[in-house]
Amino acid sequence: MSKYWSSIVNRTDPYVPGEQINDSSLIKLNTNENTYPPPESVIKAIQDEIGESLKLYPSPTVDELREAIAKAYDVRKENIFVGNGSDEVLAFSFMAFFEPGVTIRFPAITYSFYTVYAKLFNIPYEEVRLNQDFTLNTHSLFHSEGGVIFPNPNAPTGILLPIEQVEEVLLHNQEKVVIIDEAYSDFAKESAVPLIQKYPNLLVIQTTSKSRSLAGLRVGYAIGSPELIEGLNKIKNSFNSYTIDRLAMAGAIAAMNADSYYKKTTAKVIETREWLSEELSQLGFHVLPSQANFIFISHPNKKAKSLYAQLKENGILVRHFSKAAIENFIRITIGTKQDMITLLERLKIILKEKSTW
Amino acid sequence: MSKYWSSIVNRTDPYVPGEQINDSSLIKLNTNENTYPPPESVIKAIQDEIGESLKLYPSPTVDELREAIAKAYDVRKENIFVGNGSDEVLAFSFMAFFEPGVTIRFPAITYSFYTVYAKLFNIPYEEVRLNQDFTLNTHSLFHSEGGVIFPNPNAPTGILLPIEQVEEVLLHNQEKVVIIDEAYSDFAKESAVPLIQKYPNLLVIQTTSKSRSLAGLRVGYAIGSPELIEGLNKIKNSFNSYTIDRLAMAGAIAAMNADSYYKKTTAKVIETREWLSEELSQLGFHVLPSQANFIFISHPNKKAKSLYAQLKENGILVRHFSKAAIENFIRITIGTKQDMITLLERLKIILKEKSTW
Repeated sequence: MSKYWSSIVNRTDPYVPGEQINDSSLIKLNTNENTYPPPESVIKAIQDEIGESLKLYPSPTVDELREAIAKAYDVRKENIFVGNGSDEVLAFSFMAFFEPGVTIRFPAITYSFYTVYAKLFNIPYEEVRLNQDFTLNTHSLFHSEGGVIFPNPNAPTGILLPIEQVEEVLLHNQEKVVIIDEAYSDFAKESAVPLIQKYPNLLVIQTTSKSRSLAGLRVGYAIGSPELIEGLNKIKNSFNSYTIDRLAMAGAIAAMNADSYYKKTTAKVIETREWLSEELSQLGFHVLPSQANFIFISHPNKKAKSLYAQLKENGILVRHFSKAAIENFIRITIGTKQDMITLLERLKIILKEKSTW
Repeated sequence: MSKYWSSIVNRTDPYVPGEQINDSSLIKLNTNENTYPPPESVIKAIQDEIGESLKLYPSPTVDELREAIAKAYDVRKENIFVGNGSDEVLAFSFMAFFEPGVTIRFPAITYSFYTVYAKLFNIPYEEVRLNQDFTLNTHSLFHSEGGVIFPNPNAPTGILLPIEQVEEVLLHNQEKVVIIDEAYSDFAKESAVPLIQKYPNLLVIQTTSKSRSLAGLRVGYAIGSPELIEGLNKIKNSFNSYTIDRLAMAGAIAAMNADSYYKKTTAKVIETREWLSEELSQLGFHVLPSQANFIFISHPNKKAKSLYAQLKENGILVRHFSKAAIENFIRITIGTKQDMITLLERLKIILKEKSTW
């Protein structure tokens, strides 16, 4: 506490990102980065942008990138908002569409940044319980007073809500904004993007950090009706004129034009995920059915917290959340097949040791 | 208006950045970018960072860059906060240190983003009148209920408030935060940074966009007491974990280590500014005494608005503000000596034309 802090600082409860340990010998499977690098075309586009022009401001309207994203998703530029990572897009969305004092709803098990935003912006929230199998109970999201937000696939479970059920949530919340956080959507069977033409209250948020292998570049975006995009632009232009630097802009534009490369790397991630899920099931793990680039698993004979700690001792970093309902799960990012073979070997050894359950 | 917008969107009054016209034949003197490019060492540092590691998140704590800035300013890492351009640092500072509903003060003629932030965050404000000669009346800033913010040198006047008078403002506001926005400070005789050791309520904000020739990279920073920096971190970590991308981080670190290069380019800008000010005075212009990389001028025989328009017709873009008290001034960024010679030639022709006053 400091006498110089505002009431806003005093009510914050900051997000804690996954550990970023600077140790290249570690197999890093804790922050859902893509295991494959970005394509050469992205590297080259950034290289070409480096030079004297760095002395000049980037475009404040980000038009060229918005057009590239619009083209990739078969929508118009007026449907696209771009931000400094999808977390910034989420923060602006909470400001733009959720009203301080009016209760919003999101799942009780979900991306843990939502409660952080809600506290920052003084928005009350209801955390609706998941079903026993960790699927979303869509009825509990109907007729929300202040709006709805959830990731699809959900985090950290990886479970996808089928598009028909997403539409049900939209149908029963037409007076309020429904935000679908699709950070992992490219690893899933379907996306809500086509629904933006039908539902002006739908905002879909995606990112170049996951399927596009550019977490280091910080570019996220929202897709929605022009009136939602205009609301986001009013907030952004009251906050920071130039959120996307010249190099990130060049890289993200190239990434939007590299679909065939990303289709291949995404297919490999999915293939490894399916194979790994099967292998882990055979080791006795409970593996939630993931449609993301990570899996969420628990084992009947081993506490997740000690699994996390023992893997870390053995050079593999995964993520463990201390929240009660999921404290016996660990989240593992899908790496290369070789990384996953190493993971399985080490897990086998750990499971053979004296149980700590 | 949209029924989906929050009350926050409805009360915004977004900032309008200077025109970004994509026409390389134009001499661009309207957004105070540096006329000199960044040094080779910055270019190389960014090039070296491009590669596979772009798939990984950058450091959320930005420690290495904070250390480089701390070293450059002879303070500790705990005195440094880094953001996505100084506008983001300003936005976070308004949230962290100014209380909704409690009146802050800033000059009536100043950076026009301050009123935008105040409206966004619901902070009432008093715009205190400048003296006749556009200098700050420091007494009017004493004992502010909610805090104080002003640029030094001021924008768009370019006038510097001497450090003794900055200290007077701090002495008479010890219960509230005083933010000195030093975007242009490297072009001036003195900075308030040494005062942070004495005044825990002082936050100094600087940027790599002006003297360091990196407007395209988006890195700003705040220097202040550890308790102010902690307040900013709580806001930032409730908003966006990773605000600085890997390439911007690498470039900004290299920029902090390139002092001898920047001393030379800054000296050249100052020399050109002094020479140009003298030349313009001889053409009958009223030139405010600038300590920045721009000048603010008016002419008794020519309306500023038509000066702006005629210069634009003649391939030179400067900035004109429509606010009543300064509507007869134009702001001109200091370019190369050659650009300034061209500017003077065109101004001479424009002044000879039939007066539109």
